[in-house]
Amino acid sequence: MSYFRPAIDELTGYVPGEQPAAGKFIKLNTNENPYPCSSAVARAIEGALRGGLARYPDATATAFRHRAAELHGVEPEWIMCGNGSDELLTILVRAFVGEGQLIRLPHPSYVLYKTLARIQGARGEEVAFNSDWSLPAAFAKGDKNLRLVFLPNPNSPSGTMVTPEAVRELAEQLPCPLVVDEAYADFAESHCAGLPRDCDNVLVTRTLSKSYGLAGLRFGYLIAHPRLIAGLMKVKDSYNCDTLSIAAATAAIDDQQWLAETRRKILDTRARMTDALRKLGFEAVDSQANFVWNTQPEFELPRIYQGLKEQRILVRYMNYPRWGDGLRISVGTDSQIDACLGVIKGLI
Amino acid sequence: MSYFRPAIDELTGYVPGEQPAAGKFIKLNTNENPYPCSSAVARAIEGALRGGLARYPDATATAFRHRAAELHGVEPEWIMCGNGSDELLTILVRAFVGEGQLIRLPHPSYVLYKTLARIQGARGEEVAFNSDWSLPAAFAKGDKNLRLVFLPNPNSPSGTMVTPEAVRELAEQLPCPLVVDEAYADFAESHCAGLPRDCDNVLVTRTLSKSYGLAGLRFGYLIAHPRLIAGLMKVKDSYNCDTLSIAAATAAIDDQQWLAETRRKILDTRARMTDALRKLGFEAVDSQANFVWNTQPEFELPRIYQGLKEQRILVRYMNYPRWGDGLRISVGTDSQIDACLGVIKGLI
Repeated sequence: MSYFRPAIDELTGYVPGEQPAAGKFIKLNTNENPYPCSSAVARAIEGALRGGLARYPDATATAFRHRAAELHGVEPEWIMCGNGSDELLTILVRAFVGEGQLIRLPHPSYVLYKTLARIQGARGEEVAFNSDWSLPAAFAKGDKNLRLVFLPNPNSPSGTMVTPEAVRELAEQLPCPLVVDEAYADFAESHCAGLPRDCDNVLVTRTLSKSYGLAGLRFGYLIAHPRLIAGLMKVKDSYNCDTLSIAAATAAIDDQQWLAETRRKILDTRARMTDALRKLGFEAVDSQANFVWNTQPEFELPRIYQGLKEQRILVRYMNYPRWGDGLRISVGTDSQIDACLGVIKGLI
Repeated sequence: MSYFRPAIDELTGYVPGEQPAAGKFIKLNTNENPYPCSSAVARAIEGALRGGLARYPDATATAFRHRAAELHGVEPEWIMCGNGSDELLTILVRAFVGEGQLIRLPHPSYVLYKTLARIQGARGEEVAFNSDWSLPAAFAKGDKNLRLVFLPNPNSPSGTMVTPEAVRELAEQLPCPLVVDEAYADFAESHCAGLPRDCDNVLVTRTLSKSYGLAGLRFGYLIAHPRLIAGLMKVKDSYNCDTLSIAAATAAIDDQQWLAETRRKILDTRARMTDALRKLGFEAVDSQANFVWNTQPEFELPRIYQGLKEQRILVRYMNYPRWGDGLRISVGTDSQIDACLGVIKGLI
């Protein structure tokens, strides 16, 4: 006999990208930032440490919300912080979607959305992207059970974007909240951070894991109408962000010069690697994120993935049902990418 | 029109104890440790910081699980870590209890259990303690909808305990998982950390917030049969604990000498303050935790709470429906408790 809800027993847990415990790997598989974070972060952590850890943290990360609000031109009441944006996605599902109700997500995209739907006992309706990675009309269709729509923008694994204009039209058509997951927006040409002011069913999530180089810290935030935030606050654990991560995240978001310089380096490398991968024969998709999605029906991609791994270079091999497979390669430093390209060249 | 699930709209969010943002308060309201944590914690954080924060943390906090397993005489597979034990309580509800099903909890106790039941759309059945803070037979009764039972042990606000023998009997009678919330067990004479080995429906939760002086860090763990942990792992966010908190928590649990010395100081102060409060006329309950619960029908307790607050001393005033009110005073340092007792003396 199982004590678990049937939904949990039926579930295969989400398997995150490999994080090798030891040894020297070039990690191009989980879209981490190859550059060390702003030096302001360590100073902020040391400062917070001097204040001690005996007391509970600020339950709403006030200092961070003020900085983020300035950056996005909203009031702090429009910002909510989370233990990584994954925690915010979890809270959104728990707040909006009941058992048996419907969550819509594009396919292929971040597989966590579907896992979260299943944990909640909800249905996850996957709507396939068009072949040019635009959204079909079905993505905006009403449904009496539809309670939440996820749109990762830029999307993973493709690195492609739906334009802010198209996102606005989608939001206006939908009868429910639309979550625009902007984990990779800092690497893109446009974003929807301003949209929640105009469309009260739009919630934008951001993370400090990728562009700010802080995956180890677990810090994300959400921009939405204060009425929505008030409801979401009832669902979150009281003290979901800790004293050190709040201090560190506040310092990181305050150092926009570091972000601009790091972004520039990553975009330059991305352009170089996209060209090089195409010259090797891949169909590399133009990316607005910090990774590049590569397909090629004539290559044995699992063999290339495995050959790279044997040379201690990790990339992500993905094989999506009803879509096909590809290699998602994170944008590393120039020398990491050169090493990766060199090994691939020997494998094809 | 609301986008939220009805369960969320109907909910008044959990209100944690006051955390004054500024000014010098003597905080005796949220059971934090009055002593700074082990000095090994800062060293561990600085070490982790030198390793950088760009990469995702270890998804299962392996280093901590090994230390905790040694301490409790189990294998690391019996340990699961959380972003504070609050997150683990949340995961337990989501894993075991569906909409409309039943969670049992004693009354009065930690109000979060009932909030978590409501968020999940489940029913929270409160069974009142006997007047001597033992559990009535009704607490062990079967019910076809019963999916989870919470037993905080020691309990808050009373600081009292149900003996390990009684907990074992309870577990054997119950048809569902029993969560023994041992947030305060390090201050008690006994505990149930060994019980999951004998009873496969018992899960024990611990936190580093209280006894280890790390409320600001957000770190808790759970001891249970690996079969249960495997199911709970499907529900948790992939990276729920961050690189710094894992390093810090591992160093903290490794310094058992610090824990023993701090525990001794807190137990001495607890004995002194219990005597003094009784001399002032309170009915102070013998505590096995780091706080003391004080009732006295002849005192105007809200006025005492308010008078203390005006003197910048925070304690917790609680008024439980069908039970009555009281002041829960955390065990501070001797000088903090002397200041608190002095102000109370002038108010009664």
